[in-house]
Amino acid sequence: MKPSFPTSRRDILRMGAAAMGGTLLSEQEALALDTPGTLGAPLGPYGDRSPFEKAVRWRRESKTPETGSSFTPLQDSVGTLTPSSLHYERHHSGIPTIDPARHRLVIHGMVDRPLSLSMADIRRLPSVTRTMVLECGGNSASEWAATTAPDVQRSFGLASCSEWTGVSLPLLLAEARVRPGASWVIAEGADACRMERSIPLAKALDDAFLAYGQNGEALRPAQGYPLRLRLPGWEGNANVKWLHSLKLTDQPYMARDETSKYSDLMPDGKARIFSYRMEAKSVITFPSGGQTVPGPGVYELTGLAWSGLGRIERVEITTDGGKTWTNAKLQEPRLPIAFTRFRLPWRFDGREAVIASRATDETGYLQPSREALVAVRGTNSVYHFNGMKFWRVRADGAVSNVEV
Amino acid sequence: MKPSFPTSRRDILRMGAAAMGGTLLSEQEALALDTPGTLGAPLGPYGDRSPFEKAVRWRRESKTPETGSSFTPLQDSVGTLTPSSLHYERHHSGIPTIDPARHRLVIHGMVDRPLSLSMADIRRLPSVTRTMVLECGGNSASEWAATTAPDVQRSFGLASCSEWTGVSLPLLLAEARVRPGASWVIAEGADACRMERSIPLAKALDDAFLAYGQNGEALRPAQGYPLRLRLPGWEGNANVKWLHSLKLTDQPYMARDETSKYSDLMPDGKARIFSYRMEAKSVITFPSGGQTVPGPGVYELTGLAWSGLGRIERVEITTDGGKTWTNAKLQEPRLPIAFTRFRLPWRFDGREAVIASRATDETGYLQPSREALVAVRGTNSVYHFNGMKFWRVRADGAVSNVEV
Repeated sequence: MKPSFPTSRRDILRMGAAAMGGTLLSEQEALALDTPGTLGAPLGPYGDRSPFEKAVRWRRESKTPETGSSFTPLQDSVGTLTPSSLHYERHHSGIPTIDPARHRLVIHGMVDRPLSLSMADIRRLPSVTRTMVLECGGNSASEWAATTAPDVQRSFGLASCSEWTGVSLPLLLAEARVRPGASWVIAEGADACRMERSIPLAKALDDAFLAYGQNGEALRPAQGYPLRLRLPGWEGNANVKWLHSLKLTDQPYMARDETSKYSDLMPDGKARIFSYRMEAKSVITFPSGGQTVPGPGVYELTGLAWSGLGRIERVEITTDGGKTWTNAKLQEPRLPIAFTRFRLPWRFDGREAVIASRATDETGYLQPSREALVAVRGTNSVYHFNGMKFWRVRADGAVSNVEV
Repeated sequence: MKPSFPTSRRDILRMGAAAMGGTLLSEQEALALDTPGTLGAPLGPYGDRSPFEKAVRWRRESKTPETGSSFTPLQDSVGTLTPSSLHYERHHSGIPTIDPARHRLVIHGMVDRPLSLSMADIRRLPSVTRTMVLECGGNSASEWAATTAPDVQRSFGLASCSEWTGVSLPLLLAEARVRPGASWVIAEGADACRMERSIPLAKALDDAFLAYGQNGEALRPAQGYPLRLRLPGWEGNANVKWLHSLKLTDQPYMARDETSKYSDLMPDGKARIFSYRMEAKSVITFPSGGQTVPGPGVYELTGLAWSGLGRIERVEITTDGGKTWTNAKLQEPRLPIAFTRFRLPWRFDGREAVIASRATDETGYLQPSREALVAVRGTNSVYHFNGMKFWRVRADGAVSNVEV
């Protein structure tokens, strides 16, 4: 099987020819199809999506629906942003309803000038905006197992990309005057379980910020309204939601979510902890598990790539199970730590194809194969899977996982 | 009155000092404020905003709510995107409910190969993604009058910025094989009034595309679901919604919306027509009309700038009624024809200030004053106002229009 990637303009046009085959309806017939005879709906204060659009987050059935994960439908994604309504969720005691007029952020512990800030205080400070991925440390946990999740939503959908707006954390820490000897910041949320994580002071003083805006409006409740810690490139869990306390200390707290959870049990039985950084990763969203390629012809093969270390420099595609690789086209602008959409015209010739993508980021880091990852990390791990994802396109067009 | 723009790190920190003044609550008191004692809401399939968020589009009361405009609440905007739910609307016969499985796009007229395409046909073609402003040709129409709209929503809110995804129009036109002699494309929508506009073929063959995606999901019904013509930098009305027909012709149709509407009656009594391009523009969103600056101190003055001609290169701020101007800081990345957020720390000293912004784009075009615009265009115009917007901040902090 020889992979076939149309590259010339003529080839691309054949995609059109393939897609547009068949008889043209008469002009009158075609124009009449969708023309309503009556006035449409009135203008409104706050809009909704079309009733024909059905994409939703997926979650496991549970007797405790306040805790768990819900997954972004990446198979339905277009472009590089995730609609806030479909941003993945991962909660430990439900989504609190917080009145922003009563919310306060306290900065305390090893500081000379403890602060208690209202949201109004925070919103009048200099602001920053960054479009970035947020990815759960447990995204793709299913991929460590021999039987993996059946589609891209359930296997890679704990990652979403938004435009975040907020206030620089270094600015606030300068105002609080951190005492010599402080080396950690304990971030705590205002949810019922008071979810907390220990953040190295060096990260807090580097590029951390406190987000109150998401995709042009206030942060959504499920993403931490009214305030969330944002740590560019670090696992979602450390980006504490409903942030109400930052405590400066000289040691980490060894909280539940950095010891028994979100740490990596290695083959030698020791655990890697404080492994916050999410490495380069990519996945094909079309064609992907559960979808069907309608028939032979040319299609746009597409997917998403991202890295917690910076920009995506290259995404390669294989359609022959990893024997040969071809560079995909990357959507510009490629923003650091943001989703980068990749695309490649692909001719499906009606014979089985095994497809995958692999990303390289600006540091030169190449997304590993599952085998290479397992060779280092073993299979005790739950978190931080960033291996390649292979899909099998059968001769009849049905797409499914490749058994590992 | 000497304008005061803090620039040093020490000055910026004083913003903190000002905002964070007052006694720190006890740590226990502050932490207790917002900590709920019970489990929060469960995870859900499709999220909503917080019930505390109230921003909505504004529209004039009307007996025909299917026609008219609704305005984006720019005063509440953060970052550079507009939430799809708050994107401005301008409809002529309401929002049709279109089943994408039945919708077709017909390309006909002066072509050798007429096409009738389903949405599935269109979605398998090579796609492009661009973050761009859409601005109604009638945005800021109120600013031509002596008594202008009272706030930034009603005076500048017919402009919104989204990430759009779709298919290149030149690709489709190549497939349809446009005949020699064709020079216009008549674009028609599937709304009840079959809104139509004449588009020069040169624009269609330059950078036009057909959008089916907006902000990572399907286009919203109010923005043309399932398909909208997108003409980068051109007035919203020409970006025909619910697009179902593109007819190639050798002359324009002289449709209602390019003759009696969306044309510019000049001082000499002649009308400028086919004036599609939206020029460089900016406006301060905080502080802006109807808002109140709580008291003397340092604030972040902020707003939005954009140009139909390309990137924003510079935004200048005055706080002394135009006597002196200072460069604002521009949010990166500055994308062509997209909202660019500008920001400047500003010290309000409790004395009246008259503030405005002016933008320069990458072509060197400088946003004119209202007076300079009127000198050329007169006051017969309704459309294409891009003059500077001055706000008066009174000594008590109340912000309003400056009478012209």
